[in-house]
Amino acid sequence: MRRAARARDAADPLAHLRARFVVGEDDIYCVGNSLGLPRVEAAERAAAFVREQWGTHRVAGWNRAGWMEAPFRVGDTIGRLIGAAPGQVVVGDTTTLQLHRALHAALDLRPEPTPTKRVIVVDAENFPADLYIAEGVAEARGCTLRRVPMAELGQAMNEEVAVLAASHVNFRDARALDMAELTQRAHAVGALAIWDLAHSTGVFDLQLDALEVDFAVGCTYKYLNGGPGAPAFLYANRRHHGRVRSRTPGWLGHRAPFDMAPDYEAAPGIRAFLCGTPRMASLDAMAFALELIEGVSMAAARRKSMELGEAFIAGVERFAADHELALLSPRRAEERGAHVALTHPRAQPLARALASRGVAVDFRAPDTLRFAFAPMYTRHLDAVESAARLGELLAEGADHDPAFAGSGDGPVT
Amino acid sequence: MRRAARARDAADPLAHLRARFVVGEDDIYCVGNSLGLPRVEAAERAAAFVREQWGTHRVAGWNRAGWMEAPFRVGDTIGRLIGAAPGQVVVGDTTTLQLHRALHAALDLRPEPTPTKRVIVVDAENFPADLYIAEGVAEARGCTLRRVPMAELGQAMNEEVAVLAASHVNFRDARALDMAELTQRAHAVGALAIWDLAHSTGVFDLQLDALEVDFAVGCTYKYLNGGPGAPAFLYANRRHHGRVRSRTPGWLGHRAPFDMAPDYEAAPGIRAFLCGTPRMASLDAMAFALELIEGVSMAAARRKSMELGEAFIAGVERFAADHELALLSPRRAEERGAHVALTHPRAQPLARALASRGVAVDFRAPDTLRFAFAPMYTRHLDAVESAARLGELLAEGADHDPAFAGSGDGPVT
Repeated sequence: MRRAARARDAADPLAHLRARFVVGEDDIYCVGNSLGLPRVEAAERAAAFVREQWGTHRVAGWNRAGWMEAPFRVGDTIGRLIGAAPGQVVVGDTTTLQLHRALHAALDLRPEPTPTKRVIVVDAENFPADLYIAEGVAEARGCTLRRVPMAELGQAMNEEVAVLAASHVNFRDARALDMAELTQRAHAVGALAIWDLAHSTGVFDLQLDALEVDFAVGCTYKYLNGGPGAPAFLYANRRHHGRVRSRTPGWLGHRAPFDMAPDYEAAPGIRAFLCGTPRMASLDAMAFALELIEGVSMAAARRKSMELGEAFIAGVERFAADHELALLSPRRAEERGAHVALTHPRAQPLARALASRGVAVDFRAPDTLRFAFAPMYTRHLDAVESAARLGELLAEGADHDPAFAGSGDGPVT
Repeated sequence: MRRAARARDAADPLAHLRARFVVGEDDIYCVGNSLGLPRVEAAERAAAFVREQWGTHRVAGWNRAGWMEAPFRVGDTIGRLIGAAPGQVVVGDTTTLQLHRALHAALDLRPEPTPTKRVIVVDAENFPADLYIAEGVAEARGCTLRRVPMAELGQAMNEEVAVLAASHVNFRDARALDMAELTQRAHAVGALAIWDLAHSTGVFDLQLDALEVDFAVGCTYKYLNGGPGAPAFLYANRRHHGRVRSRTPGWLGHRAPFDMAPDYEAAPGIRAFLCGTPRMASLDAMAFALELIEGVSMAAARRKSMELGEAFIAGVERFAADHELALLSPRRAEERGAHVALTHPRAQPLARALASRGVAVDFRAPDTLRFAFAPMYTRHLDAVESAARLGELLAEGADHDPAFAGSGDGPVT
């Protein structure tokens, strides 16, 4: 299997990218679904931002260094990765706050808000923060929140539904929903579709414009490698521009911020979705991360991450049944995002044992291990090796080894 | 006057701080009210964050490098500058979003919300974004927004008022409100007081706990030198903890974020006011900026900025009447923040002419110049020099010089 993996690496059109990231030769990092890696020159770029932009232009940087436009410039670059034409993506705040904004906007857009069309349908297995924020918005707007299992979302689309809000790829088991079909079903009943792309941006060939998605939000510190807590993005389809009132009307979303007018008048276009002052250091880091991958074909990235997942699962299947190990993710690559979730009764000691063998994975209480295969820096060999080392550890009984017991790190998302 | 200024600089207990910032010997930067300056080592620190934290700890940094606690750790440091005991300040998001949060929380806290107590009083001359967000919250909560001129805020406190939201120091003319008196007046009628400290944090000896302020929000990229778009802060007085429901319930404000529970249960304490994933690069830059000034006496900082403003105004008064120049700020230092606003019919060409003589100031349409005297890096000599150079330029007729006409930069805030 290692030989085959090496051959695939040799033929991999994305293989050259790995050398551009801070990752060692024997370093298998399977947590790109939580926090992506920095580029080799990211530290120098961060210093250059302080030295050549903040320290040099000082306050004039807002105009002279183009800081004012950064949320839209970086947004357009992300747009190219998600199938959005320019002028529909803004970068800023957090995914949670962008979802808050999108949900309110979608509710505003129901052409005939009737007492009978007041249901927000959410994917019941969605990331908890998405559920919390949807609950909050539903309460604020006097709507009903309906939590529907992923597999039943299509059937749940009926005339009562105003908004469907779901994650394209589930954070836990990587199950991918059919975005095309569900968006169409939502539209067919007069509802709007909001997609959380946290676990799909950068690893799927997304086509938001073509699918006529209404709104989407996403995270940039996973497969886009923006750095810990890098700003989120909001996609608002052009047909909704100018028709939405922001619930968080900020001065930079004003038609003329520097008029300092006492009343809010929304800017035209995507600009109306901007609120406060852009976080420039983060945006610059984001722009730098994107420079590397904006030319990468998302179809190729998706293909590679599917292959990596397949190779990993094939490796695991050789010993899983003997060791209480089960596949939580869908078996078919087409139904899966870029990570693979396994369950095991002693998942936490296993995660620690893997770390001791150079394989960083993510443990989710109580019994889940997630192995992410970020296509930009993960090799085919890494997928095969991580399965092989997991098998070795189980054969050695590492899951029972007291050296790996006890409480430990619980990484984010 | 220059000799006297040099003598004051020689005796200035904060004089040593200037050498710690990126600022040249003949460089007079009077825009610290908009964007503060970087520390000399800020570029290296930004690089070190990427190299030693993100690149080294990777996803484990959330626990091992203390990222999870950063919003509260940095919050407590800011707390020391604003007279807040630990556990009451969180850093994140933008000032606008924090104000949104504070306004909703304050409305939640009215013990007996009655139809007659539904008025939000805002300072009518407040920063526009504050007015926009207050308007939005008032509409969302079915309240009345009452815009009251700064001088009449005290009289406006009556039994109908649920919340007073005002800026301590006005962004335009630097007029400072009496926080103690207004907070007391608000409380006397059963209202809560929310203060926007954007233009006072780092330049006033604030005492939020002692004044029993309810909520406060503020900006860290002005006098705290956090960098362009650095995260904002929210102060929530301890007595309100556990009694507020967030309108933007985020996963990191949950009692147990890693339980991934489908329902939101607020964390105890200030933690409930956190929402999304912390922006770590910005928080680390902020922590670094604060390391330098957290030991500085805010009383000394306030005293110095008052002296600088006085020296500047005294200089300007020698020629103002001859050149259509008027003082927009209060004449008494006690009633003024750290900047001084002047009006002149040709303020914009004057701002450009000043820049050509090494004095960076801020122009606000149509006729205002703002000179900020950030006490951490501004010398007494700078205050005297900036007045003197303004006088020279007016004497030379630079405001009529076509070289300085035309449209130009409009810096932020």
